[in-house]
Amino acid sequence: MHEVDLSKYKLRTDLIAEHLNNFKEYEKSEELYNDIKIETITLDKETAKTISKKEGIYKTIYFEDVTDETNFNNTLHATTIALKDLLENIKKSDSVLIVGLGNRKATPDALGPLTIDEIKITRQIVELGLPLDNKYRIISSLVPGVMGTTGIETKEIIEGVIEKAKPDFLIVIDALAASSIERINKTIQLTDTGIHPGSGLLNNRFEISKETLGIPVIAIGIPTVVDATTIVSNTINYIFRHFSYEKENIDNKKLKLVPPSSRDYKNHDKTLNKEEREEVMGLIGNLDEEEVKSLITEVLTPLGYNLLVTPKEIDFVVSKLSSLLGKALNKSLELN
Amino acid sequence: MHEVDLSKYKLRTDLIAEHLNNFKEYEKSEELYNDIKIETITLDKETAKTISKKEGIYKTIYFEDVTDETNFNNTLHATTIALKDLLENIKKSDSVLIVGLGNRKATPDALGPLTIDEIKITRQIVELGLPLDNKYRIISSLVPGVMGTTGIETKEIIEGVIEKAKPDFLIVIDALAASSIERINKTIQLTDTGIHPGSGLLNNRFEISKETLGIPVIAIGIPTVVDATTIVSNTINYIFRHFSYEKENIDNKKLKLVPPSSRDYKNHDKTLNKEEREEVMGLIGNLDEEEVKSLITEVLTPLGYNLLVTPKEIDFVVSKLSSLLGKALNKSLELN
Amino acid sequence: MHEVDLSKYKLRTDLIAEHLNNFKEYEKSEELYNDIKIETITLDKETAKTISKKEGIYKTIYFEDVTDETNFNNTLHATTIALKDLLENIKKSDSVLIVGLGNRKATPDALGPLTIDEIKITRQIVELGLPLDNKYRIISSLVPGVMGTTGIETKEIIEGVIEKAKPDFLIVIDALAASSIERINKTIQLTDTGIHPGSGLLNNRFEISKETLGIPVIAIGIPTVVDATTIVSNTINYIFRHFSYEKENIDNKKLKLVPPSSRDYKNHDKTLNKEEREEVMGLIGNLDEEEVKSLITEVLTPLGYNLLVTPKEIDFVVSKLSSLLGKALNKSLELN
Amino acid sequence: MHEVDLSKYKLRTDLIAEHLNNFKEYEKSEELYNDIKIETITLDKETAKTISKKEGIYKTIYFEDVTDETNFNNTLHATTIALKDLLENIKKSDSVLIVGLGNRKATPDALGPLTIDEIKITRQIVELGLPLDNKYRIISSLVPGVMGTTGIETKEIIEGVIEKAKPDFLIVIDALAASSIERINKTIQLTDTGIHPGSGLLNNRFEISKETLGIPVIAIGIPTVVDATTIVSNTINYIFRHFSYEKENIDNKKLKLVPPSSRDYKNHDKTLNKEEREEVMGLIGNLDEEEVKSLITEVLTPLGYNLLVTPKEIDFVVSKLSSLLGKALNKSLELN
Repeated sequence: MHEVDLSKYKLRTDLIAEHLNNFKEYEKSEELYNDIKIETITLDKETAKTISKKEGIYKTIYFEDVTDETNFNNTLHATTIALKDLLENIKKSDSVLIVGLGNRKATPDALGPLTIDEIKITRQIVELGLPLDNKYRIISSLVPGVMGTTGIETKEIIEGVIEKAKPDFLIVIDALAASSIERINKTIQLTDTGIHPGSGLLNNRFEISKETLGIPVIAIGIPTVVDATTIVSNTINYIFRHFSYEKENIDNKKLKLVPPSSRDYKNHDKTLNKEEREEVMGLIGNLDEEEVKSLITEVLTPLGYNLLVTPKEIDFVVSKLSSLLGKALNKSLELN
Repeated sequence: MHEVDLSKYKLRTDLIAEHLNNFKEYEKSEELYNDIKIETITLDKETAKTISKKEGIYKTIYFEDVTDETNFNNTLHATTIALKDLLENIKKSDSVLIVGLGNRKATPDALGPLTIDEIKITRQIVELGLPLDNKYRIISSLVPGVMGTTGIETKEIIEGVIEKAKPDFLIVIDALAASSIERINKTIQLTDTGIHPGSGLLNNRFEISKETLGIPVIAIGIPTVVDATTIVSNTINYIFRHFSYEKENIDNKKLKLVPPSSRDYKNHDKTLNKEEREEVMGLIGNLDEEEVKSLITEVLTPLGYNLLVTPKEIDFVVSKLSSLLGKALNKSLELN
Repeated sequence: MHEVDLSKYKLRTDLIAEHLNNFKEYEKSEELYNDIKIETITLDKETAKTISKKEGIYKTIYFEDVTDETNFNNTLHATTIALKDLLENIKKSDSVLIVGLGNRKATPDALGPLTIDEIKITRQIVELGLPLDNKYRIISSLVPGVMGTTGIETKEIIEGVIEKAKPDFLIVIDALAASSIERINKTIQLTDTGIHPGSGLLNNRFEISKETLGIPVIAIGIPTVVDATTIVSNTINYIFRHFSYEKENIDNKKLKLVPPSSRDYKNHDKTLNKEEREEVMGLIGNLDEEEVKSLITEVLTPLGYNLLVTPKEIDFVVSKLSSLLGKALNKSLELN
Repeated sequence: MHEVDLSKYKLRTDLIAEHLNNFKEYEKSEELYNDIKIETITLDKETAKTISKKEGIYKTIYFEDVTDETNFNNTLHATTIALKDLLENIKKSDSVLIVGLGNRKATPDALGPLTIDEIKITRQIVELGLPLDNKYRIISSLVPGVMGTTGIETKEIIEGVIEKAKPDFLIVIDALAASSIERINKTIQLTDTGIHPGSGLLNNRFEISKETLGIPVIAIGIPTVVDATTIVSNTINYIFRHFSYEKENIDNKKLKLVPPSSRDYKNHDKTLNKEEREEVMGLIGNLDEEEVKSLITEVLTPLGYNLLVTPKEIDFVVSKLSSLLGKALNKSLELN
């Protein structure tokens, strides 16, 4: 009756951590700074190939609502550390071009351009023949726009500017699509592998990386949107966890007094077994996660309802996130 | 194992049409203007009471993507007609205060303030002692802000200004929460019953209506956000329709050639029967729509994931929708 | 041949310091904080009457370009001190309504609304029945708009809201017209006498003060625009000072080596005498400053060229100034 | 006592018409469309050299306040005609890159970027391999930013993008400094000679023209700022005209009844003679216009008061002007 076309499914996210859930062997480490977790994954050539990702370092910073001042400051601290770490392999004297991808006029896609607004640019000082404080690198910036409004491939604009400004390395910032409700506006991913087609908000058709541009590319991404398919498939998993929790506590009289929507199963990490899943969700309960996603995509796409959505507070959140990235970049690019 | 607390569920929308689905007897009419449907429902006291709504006229305009110029113009035409209709009961000489509710700095909530920016204001002409072209009503406007940023109840600000400016009637514009994915950014609701707590984006705790303010209140609302619960519960219904369609076409060899996510079941309005629903969705398939919503709310709320979200193109859409409302208001308020 | 109608000339500024230049007896004191001067003038009833100003305290803070970080911080410090000083006469338990006058959509007039965006509002906490940290006053805010876009007198909107929100005192913030090129974007004036017609950007026709509203009104103003008449009349004075300086240095051989536009006569505070002024400027040189301004107004007004202008960097400057006022207000309104 | 250094004076405007006032022989024609004047000057190599301008066509459109709807529409009509005229020498099949110079974040300098927002871009259609309606040229756009915020010479960014996107010709839009109060926000200049250092808002240090880029460059400029020197020197001329008018009407009893600032001498195009000028303005009255400007520059520069200013309504005006240029460009670039 129903046919799952797995081959059609395209990964819509760069959140490497999630792709690796089923893989056991790769280098992974975690650091904690005031509750902010930095997860570092180093993929060697072989593992990278297995999961269709690129060889290199992937750092993911996990945090909560950055409109809270304490969270903001802690996350800023962790991001600065992670950025400095990635910059270890770059020479102190190297000049950088920072590129803010995305559309300044679409709030959830404006992360890149808004971050650029926060960056301390120094290259014009050198260009004007003035002396540059040796505390600073040579920093330039570019907001290339999106193909829909420029008519030009973003990668071509970047290439053209690189040929003239001749930076030694690139930092690119982009808004991404989340692969889970949990991480929307709550994750920063850093990598030295660049940006790839199919990731991000699908604005770019071409890879932006050392392989394609000839200079190192550090990519910074934050998921600011999520599609309806992900919301539904995530919720189905939460339903299983919820039922598992309720079942486990079926005789807990104290819990009966708590209204259902206040019963906190956040830390209940068990879920239903196959039979239970089928009982609760029938045929759907029998499918694995990728199959569920494929089905939902098939259901929503013909109707035009597989919307990419963003939380309604996005204006405030993107403003904070771009301010955070700007400060972290300014700090981590300082020499001395 | 699971307990549905129906009493807790609060309707988050003013889309009267949907609340009436289960009711048979009320006055309802439909008009069509270039594919744009205006649905008019007139609730008498009794019916209104039954569904916990207010007695009065409810008009809903259904349209598609207004960033398309033809759709925009057709919708503008229909909206102007609907507004003129509602203004029939207002005297030509009556002065109006147009109030743009919501937060100018949150894109999906900025519909009201942005609409005000488009309105031709005339009251200052009279105030300055100058002659007012008899083509125009006396029109003033107010953007009261939201309690989170003013610290004052919106209703109190409106009351205070009414006492000074003494308009004969009020028009209030607000962004709403949609009760279905289908209608987000694609419905305008007009009513002469005002705005009520629990509707809209929950910014207002108090009713803004003739009963509370003493002058007629025409309310204009457009759903610009939707919660995760609605997305999931809608999708479950689409899954049933999708399976019903696939089942009906199981021997259709031509359809087999169409990739699953291109099989257009938009106009297939049949769904599965009880047994089929249970087969596909188990226990969940057994619940009615309100129960499904209650369950999902219970699942998502404790995790903090029952997000209110908006499509990622919201900046462009809200800009168009506020321009449309502004033009429709200017046109329908002209006296000629 | 030419007729100066002095009676027609309206003062376009609240910069009390300048109006007092010709008066000898009033209370005046100066404080310096890291190069930032706060000048305090206390007018008693009698003196106030003589110069058509109101009895009360007038504080003027003089600073330079606030887009420079050090200037910004020093000015912020001085402004906080001056504000705290003015708040001395207000009870700790008194609640405040902060009003941002002006038009959010006109950059040089957006100072008030943008400052409001920076204020920590607390009144909603009390309104929602929650406990308010005793570090904070009850603070609410209002952005009433301008009569041109609301159709309602600003003073009426404020009155209406006061009657509902019942604050104990008011703080109003407005952009002003400068009475000298020197002080544009470089002066903050604070006073406990409110805001008066004829001052500011002429947006308000009615006085906003304790006398008219019944509660104390602290007014904060920054000149962000200047008219062409002022630019020309200021320049004529500078021409006199310039010639006085050149004359005094006529035999200074070292100065001859400095290009004319680099000869720094900033600290040369002498000017030409009557005969010299007539030699340099003929008939115009014979007029006193008010007569010169009247003449220029007569010359420019019929042509429509007595423009109110603002420096081209106004976006950056107003952004900094409103941030500064917001921080100073938040700090000075804290109890502790 | 005072020294005028004429060699130092740099022309701050591209308004060719004014530079030519003292030249008699060049090709000049005028057209009128609903009161909107288009002046066309064609400079041959020789004349161009004499006035340090480039050989080519210069069109100036004179209009009044474009926030008035009728003026807006008439000016739009004239601008479209003038643009089509300049495009006569460009092949129908030629692709164009439209460049919006200036800083999006500084209102008076945002004309270029805001115009780009209005342009219908088509090049991405071709880039994606889709068929392009033969009504349209291949149009792409670029907002390169300013060196102060990118750190890169604007010309280099343009060159880099040209090498990749390979347009057949360029259209560049920039905000200019006015050489007279009269024309601020009230003139559009079009030329096929490109943009030159020293013109515009001084953002560009390098020529953007066919000579430097290898493809034809059509430049569109509107003066949105003016310096204090120009305001003062213009006013001195108006003073002379004003006195000339008053003198001529000394026995006009009717005029005596008109208040001085309402006496309309707009169409009085006579001025004072040398003796009269000296009587009114002494030594200053003896200088020619360039000498007056040099003197004022010398007076204001050391004080830091030779401000570049813009009218306080600039937000509304730039919004209208960019909308006008966008519409005119879309219309004139259409084929058929």
